[in-house]
Amino acid sequence: MPTTSIDLNSDVGESFGNWTFGDDAAIIASVSSINVACGFHAGDPSTIRATCKAAAEAGVTVGAHPGYRDLAGFGRRFIDMNPAELTNDVVYQIGAVQALARVAGTEVRYVKPHGALYNSIVHHPAQARAVVEAVLAVDPGLPVMVLPKSEIERAARAAGLRTVAEGFADRAYNPDGTLVSRALPGAVLHSVDAVTEHVLRLVGDGQVRAVDGSLISVEVDSICLHGDTPDSVRLAAAVRAALVDSGVTIVSFA
Amino acid sequence: MPTTSIDLNSDVGESFGNWTFGDDAAIIASVSSINVACGFHAGDPSTIRATCKAAAEAGVTVGAHPGYRDLAGFGRRFIDMNPAELTNDVVYQIGAVQALARVAGTEVRYVKPHGALYNSIVHHPAQARAVVEAVLAVDPGLPVMVLPKSEIERAARAAGLRTVAEGFADRAYNPDGTLVSRALPGAVLHSVDAVTEHVLRLVGDGQVRAVDGSLISVEVDSICLHGDTPDSVRLAAAVRAALVDSGVTIVSFA
Amino acid sequence: MPTTSIDLNSDVGESFGNWTFGDDAAIIASVSSINVACGFHAGDPSTIRATCKAAAEAGVTVGAHPGYRDLAGFGRRFIDMNPAELTNDVVYQIGAVQALARVAGTEVRYVKPHGALYNSIVHHPAQARAVVEAVLAVDPGLPVMVLPKSEIERAARAAGLRTVAEGFADRAYNPDGTLVSRALPGAVLHSVDAVTEHVLRLVGDGQVRAVDGSLISVEVDSICLHGDTPDSVRLAAAVRAALVDSGVTIVSFA
Amino acid sequence: MPTTSIDLNSDVGESFGNWTFGDDAAIIASVSSINVACGFHAGDPSTIRATCKAAAEAGVTVGAHPGYRDLAGFGRRFIDMNPAELTNDVVYQIGAVQALARVAGTEVRYVKPHGALYNSIVHHPAQARAVVEAVLAVDPGLPVMVLPKSEIERAARAAGLRTVAEGFADRAYNPDGTLVSRALPGAVLHSVDAVTEHVLRLVGDGQVRAVDGSLISVEVDSICLHGDTPDSVRLAAAVRAALVDSGVTIVSFA
Repeated sequence: MPTTSIDLNSDVGESFGNWTFGDDAAIIASVSSINVACGFHAGDPSTIRATCKAAAEAGVTVGAHPGYRDLAGFGRRFIDMNPAELTNDVVYQIGAVQALARVAGTEVRYVKPHGALYNSIVHHPAQARAVVEAVLAVDPGLPVMVLPKSEIERAARAAGLRTVAEGFADRAYNPDGTLVSRALPGAVLHSVDAVTEHVLRLVGDGQVRAVDGSLISVEVDSICLHGDTPDSVRLAAAVRAALVDSGVTIVSFA
Repeated sequence: MPTTSIDLNSDVGESFGNWTFGDDAAIIASVSSINVACGFHAGDPSTIRATCKAAAEAGVTVGAHPGYRDLAGFGRRFIDMNPAELTNDVVYQIGAVQALARVAGTEVRYVKPHGALYNSIVHHPAQARAVVEAVLAVDPGLPVMVLPKSEIERAARAAGLRTVAEGFADRAYNPDGTLVSRALPGAVLHSVDAVTEHVLRLVGDGQVRAVDGSLISVEVDSICLHGDTPDSVRLAAAVRAALVDSGVTIVSFA
Repeated sequence: MPTTSIDLNSDVGESFGNWTFGDDAAIIASVSSINVACGFHAGDPSTIRATCKAAAEAGVTVGAHPGYRDLAGFGRRFIDMNPAELTNDVVYQIGAVQALARVAGTEVRYVKPHGALYNSIVHHPAQARAVVEAVLAVDPGLPVMVLPKSEIERAARAAGLRTVAEGFADRAYNPDGTLVSRALPGAVLHSVDAVTEHVLRLVGDGQVRAVDGSLISVEVDSICLHGDTPDSVRLAAAVRAALVDSGVTIVSFA
Repeated sequence: MPTTSIDLNSDVGESFGNWTFGDDAAIIASVSSINVACGFHAGDPSTIRATCKAAAEAGVTVGAHPGYRDLAGFGRRFIDMNPAELTNDVVYQIGAVQALARVAGTEVRYVKPHGALYNSIVHHPAQARAVVEAVLAVDPGLPVMVLPKSEIERAARAAGLRTVAEGFADRAYNPDGTLVSRALPGAVLHSVDAVTEHVLRLVGDGQVRAVDGSLISVEVDSICLHGDTPDSVRLAAAVRAALVDSGVTIVSFA
């Protein structure tokens, strides 16, 4: 195989107070990097600390996962924010998780925007630059995890930030390398076989079979898995096992 | 005068979004240290950053001013929190302001709890220890600003933290050195003359004339001023001028 | 049996945005009244409406379940609020649920304070009166569900409000009729047999066997069940079945 | 003058906890209708009640002024909400203010969406219908205050709701009757003379002189004034006085 190692990442730390979300302990066992919610869309301070501690004990890399200030919407609703305010909101969130990560015996080693912010900065230049300015201001050595060929990828590279290209284990791709919209049928792969085949081709060959059947080149440094349902946790474990069986090492990019 | 220097501090950065509070620019001109709200009771990230930038430009020391998570109550209502959760809430807040302070060209150099939390840890051992554990975990070199002879002073010293004893420019004192409750008449000094005389005696002689007329010893490292009304800003400027006229240097303890 | 009917109630509508809590559909099948979270400690508007709609369809009575403004603490932390502000917070919450209940085809027919507020007004006269004033102001015909012999019961009756005395299916009682503190061992009954025996005695005889073995008189109009775990939902169904088997009618007090 | 009466409205009740905003007492003296913030973008319950009480005492009509759930953004940032959730958020907010208005001795007599929601429903059909469904569900007799020729006006009329066409005292108009974008120079009128001339022509002749100098027809039922600065409060009083001097009666549409 041309690639002999890959990073697997997942969104974690998304509980809030009395509300739990996802099986963080289980998903941490399958991935090499975790994106820790920073409190604006999910993640209270005690959850953040406990999640970072679990990552430290498991030897898993911690990333900050900032989002829009929107607990009621879980950060999944676009907010038409002033870019300068967005920069400061992202700095605040990264700083908060940096402190809790250190207290838990680890460090924030990358930044991956969450939810609607992640989607917005694929195509919204001003919000993409706002996120880049936040990371630059906090630590220009922090990589940003991005969708390949997005505005945020361009803006981050133009600013000298390292980018980590992300692929998705359970998402169908268009022939141009973009993701099939969740509004369309077939956007999400559900079967273990389909997901495993997709991931092995992505990691092994740097290719994806698009929805029109064509094979396209997609280079990724990390693959996103989910841990919010028992099924998704099982799928994540299956993906990891299939990669390991194929001789791929699961290791963080950081 | 036996004391030739003193720190003056004030609570700032208490605006939130569209709501402004206090005249931070004016009060920063009178003090040597500012307590910056951290977002849980007041202080959005853009306000925090702008406040830290103003402090950096003025050569004023920045402290983190964490409070209970209570925007509606401005952190002025006691919340019977689990101590471990309080520790994590305080770590989160300090970390967030540390990041914004660095981006603004300065550093968090001390911690002063806000409002009801400040009052609670005067006498509530579990919450006092929770705050101490937060500061220890973030940086055991950070001093904590405290009311003299309080639980938090005892807990901080027992843990090896440096404490900064705080006095109040506009508050009357009981003969035992505690503050007269705000619920009682005469608790707050309003006239420039009364406040100035009180501060000069406190700084110059280490003494306070208590409400019963007796002179008591009160040792402080910093004196709290207010900047939330035009009157309080004028009072702060008058206090500073009176101290300078008496040969006292206004300089941060940090 | 001297009592031939009883109300069973449960706290519901405690999801918030993306976070779910409890199995409301299941517990609604076992009770005759539901306490609907009002948005300050849990319960977003869409959850409140869906919960009221489910109650309307099931013929279950809806009560408003106001709490402290504390999403991060789920309303389970005492907040030392100004009583006038507490009154207004409770009016706001009741009004919001009244509107959503009507839209869902039903009505708010009683008020039961939630969590730390429920506990506070057992012994805190000012907060108890604040809640009474809220209910009086909104609708003096709304009953208040209360712990027997509490401050809130006294204050509500003194104001002419109807009170609904509440007992607990899974809680142990002290010889004086108060609940055993959750901090003590044995405070919560876990087995189906223990809970069922306790409820049948409470409903059938108006008696409880206290932790010292003595039989004491406890008169209740409603019994609280839980629906937040699969076990508690099964326990609720067992309690209902045992009551029905004993010839007791499950019917709301309203 | 063809029109002998007009409604003047203003946004009020926008304080939150310790933060005050605007001079509500002063602006209530100049208008006939007030739009009361409902708690999601501004307006805590005690502020809402006090504002409604002031309106009741002044004989001023109360409207609910719901906005996006965005305290940090004051409801001035578009949020790409699910329409069904928006409907429920608006029902919740109207219900809350209805209860507080009744407690204060008055009633909610219309609905005017706030800020970014007001702007969104000018052109966003799904959010416009969501607001219409909320008002229909709460009370189909409640009028909705709208920008003329907007999506919300069309949707409200199609659903059988009464609409109240709103003009702006201090905003310049394009030749097609839309408002000049705030991003452009000249969008806001500042001088008392310019505003007064504009309002008198609008009320007296049903006309506006557009930015290109042409006279266009604009029919309005209410004119929006501001009360957030001392200048705007003085401007509001001047507008009222000029209208009264011209023989126009200031009276609510409700």
